[in-house]
Amino acid sequence: MKGKPLASIVSVGLSKFGKLEGKYSREIFVEAAREAFGSCSNLDPKRDVKALFVGQMSESFEHQGHVAPSLSDWMGLLPIPATRIEAACASSGAALRCAIFAIMSGIYDVVAVGGVEKMTHRATSDVTEYLAMASDFPMEQWHGITFPAIFGLMATAHMHKYGTTEEQMAMVAVKNHHHGCLNPKAQIQSEITVKQVMESRPVAWPLKLFDCSLISDGASCLVVTRPDTARRFTDTPVDIVGTGQASETIGLYERDDMTFMQVARSAAKQAYEMSGRTPRGIDVAEVHDCFTIAEIIAYEDLGFCAPGEGGKLIEEEETQLGGRIPVNTSGGLKSKGHPVGATGTAQACEIYLQLTGQAGRRQVEDACTGLTHNIGGSGATGVVHIYQRRD
Amino acid sequence: MKGKPLASIVSVGLSKFGKLEGKYSREIFVEAAREAFGSCSNLDPKRDVKALFVGQMSESFEHQGHVAPSLSDWMGLLPIPATRIEAACASSGAALRCAIFAIMSGIYDVVAVGGVEKMTHRATSDVTEYLAMASDFPMEQWHGITFPAIFGLMATAHMHKYGTTEEQMAMVAVKNHHHGCLNPKAQIQSEITVKQVMESRPVAWPLKLFDCSLISDGASCLVVTRPDTARRFTDTPVDIVGTGQASETIGLYERDDMTFMQVARSAAKQAYEMSGRTPRGIDVAEVHDCFTIAEIIAYEDLGFCAPGEGGKLIEEEETQLGGRIPVNTSGGLKSKGHPVGATGTAQACEIYLQLTGQAGRRQVEDACTGLTHNIGGSGATGVVHIYQRRD
Repeated sequence: MKGKPLASIVSVGLSKFGKLEGKYSREIFVEAAREAFGSCSNLDPKRDVKALFVGQMSESFEHQGHVAPSLSDWMGLLPIPATRIEAACASSGAALRCAIFAIMSGIYDVVAVGGVEKMTHRATSDVTEYLAMASDFPMEQWHGITFPAIFGLMATAHMHKYGTTEEQMAMVAVKNHHHGCLNPKAQIQSEITVKQVMESRPVAWPLKLFDCSLISDGASCLVVTRPDTARRFTDTPVDIVGTGQASETIGLYERDDMTFMQVARSAAKQAYEMSGRTPRGIDVAEVHDCFTIAEIIAYEDLGFCAPGEGGKLIEEEETQLGGRIPVNTSGGLKSKGHPVGATGTAQACEIYLQLTGQAGRRQVEDACTGLTHNIGGSGATGVVHIYQRRD
Repeated sequence: MKGKPLASIVSVGLSKFGKLEGKYSREIFVEAAREAFGSCSNLDPKRDVKALFVGQMSESFEHQGHVAPSLSDWMGLLPIPATRIEAACASSGAALRCAIFAIMSGIYDVVAVGGVEKMTHRATSDVTEYLAMASDFPMEQWHGITFPAIFGLMATAHMHKYGTTEEQMAMVAVKNHHHGCLNPKAQIQSEITVKQVMESRPVAWPLKLFDCSLISDGASCLVVTRPDTARRFTDTPVDIVGTGQASETIGLYERDDMTFMQVARSAAKQAYEMSGRTPRGIDVAEVHDCFTIAEIIAYEDLGFCAPGEGGKLIEEEETQLGGRIPVNTSGGLKSKGHPVGATGTAQACEIYLQLTGQAGRRQVEDACTGLTHNIGGSGATGVVHIYQRRD
């Protein structure tokens, strides 16, 4: 099936990202779904949308499991099947794969897929604990290590092996804040400087506050169809031409090398092979910058540069708007925000907007091929998708 | 695709069900996977199994999210993609659907699908709370209603509308305990009497202790393949010929009628239509008897009898081994046990054993067609599958 479209995105929606006070997940998700449905004039959701797949990371934030049917309810789509997929911060990336499988199965012609998380109403210590549940309980959580610390270890290893600097990491934050200023949906819309990042409060050395992504409420939603029926819903479908997912030990301590993520390499290899694309052919990418070091590692794992050269790539402004391969034009997790369950399909939203020329002030000129890279935990799950503009 | 096999089960495995002290989910799941892999001589898991889908209800029991990659790790199957699906107690029923979609997509030829839950190490009050997270937070949990109470309301409504009796509900427990005595894997293997059920401690009137299913640790695992390659792995594949899933309001209070589950009716309709089968053509069924009343309602929703006649059906011993349509020959959730995330695919395990003549002392003679009915929460999710013996 090399290069053949697997499924097509015909419409996308994003809620606001940020602190959405007094709203439950289901209300936030409806905001995203409404935008997706509303921007697709030929779509009658009640008639057309036959199933929902939704990524949500944690039942703990709202003390609410079994979230999927309530979303189907609040969208007015009962009794369609609604299924929650959980893969930590890669939950909606994994949900998108289930949606693709469902479309390719021939059972459904049109499905909705998205993600949602409501996080900001909890104390930061609670948020840190709930997120840490995606690390290994007996060997990591139990000993008190949190995700900033885990990525701090990865950063240290990368600095040691390759000479990557704190300044280079800071440049990732600066770039993504700059991009976020061009995205009206971004949670933070203000420029920062390398100096500000360097002087921000230490969280887990070498990571400082501005190296960390945000705590956010938000939701994302895509309408996905069979490639051959996509034109019924829009003149500008975006085809998904490659999908990959891989697993790794949940505990960081069990891996031989902390300077890369095997899951990203493996998922990317699957997606590149399936799509017949190569890193050189990617025009725009959204990668999982949960911490600045993660974006640098992503460059390397995705083949945008050689291992160890991620720091140089950001330094040379190659991944900035106008560079060779703009990354995180949305602002990324760092500036757009990171409502964890929503992130995977939010990345797909941005790629859809880019490939259909709807990205406004952050538009990458003539973007034809896009990629998303969505990571769960410290890299126990990795999901990569490749997208192609329909000509 | 009416009547066409969607995917085939070539092998099944179940861990012990019960109190499995000192074991994490991943260790329990490996026990089930090992049995599934070990009983399929032509299967080389490392070579053949290309993805894992796993149902788990709650991250709270073990303070562990992101469980799927750790299962793939402990099964020795890294780096295959591993995805957790959550739909409350219907988690692995929903996971089975994702596995079917993945097979039908043509991307994978062989996948593993299962479920696991570790519950018994927590205090009963914790278990009750974590399970209650599958009900509506603002309108149910917050007001203190728990699942026994929710099903107590349904039982009361059924008694009021149809004259169903406490004795009839007790008969479900008696039957399922009897069947459980014939299943070496069942958590409880002792006969009980209607009198014992009636005299057991009230939990939420009219439900008494022996009307309630068990708190269990356990796991289940299936190996699922494309129908056309199934014979490569076994002489006795079982084809999945119908699948259905539906959603309903998460809160019971929003439904007009508490005496049936719309999701079960809707999911069953989908599965019957897809398979070209009818209720009359089902030889053996595993239904979601989380409480005895739920089994009576299931008879009606699945069309084994008319609405309101479920009490009569159990009273006339039609659903007992030797009856017209034996239900829960495994012992059901009531006697085999109910490790919530494992239940959906554990039901499929029993049907596989029945349709391949491997059910030992509880074998239904000449069983050709089977059905599973898996419910999440109070019926916000329903999943139904229909299975056919290969001749």
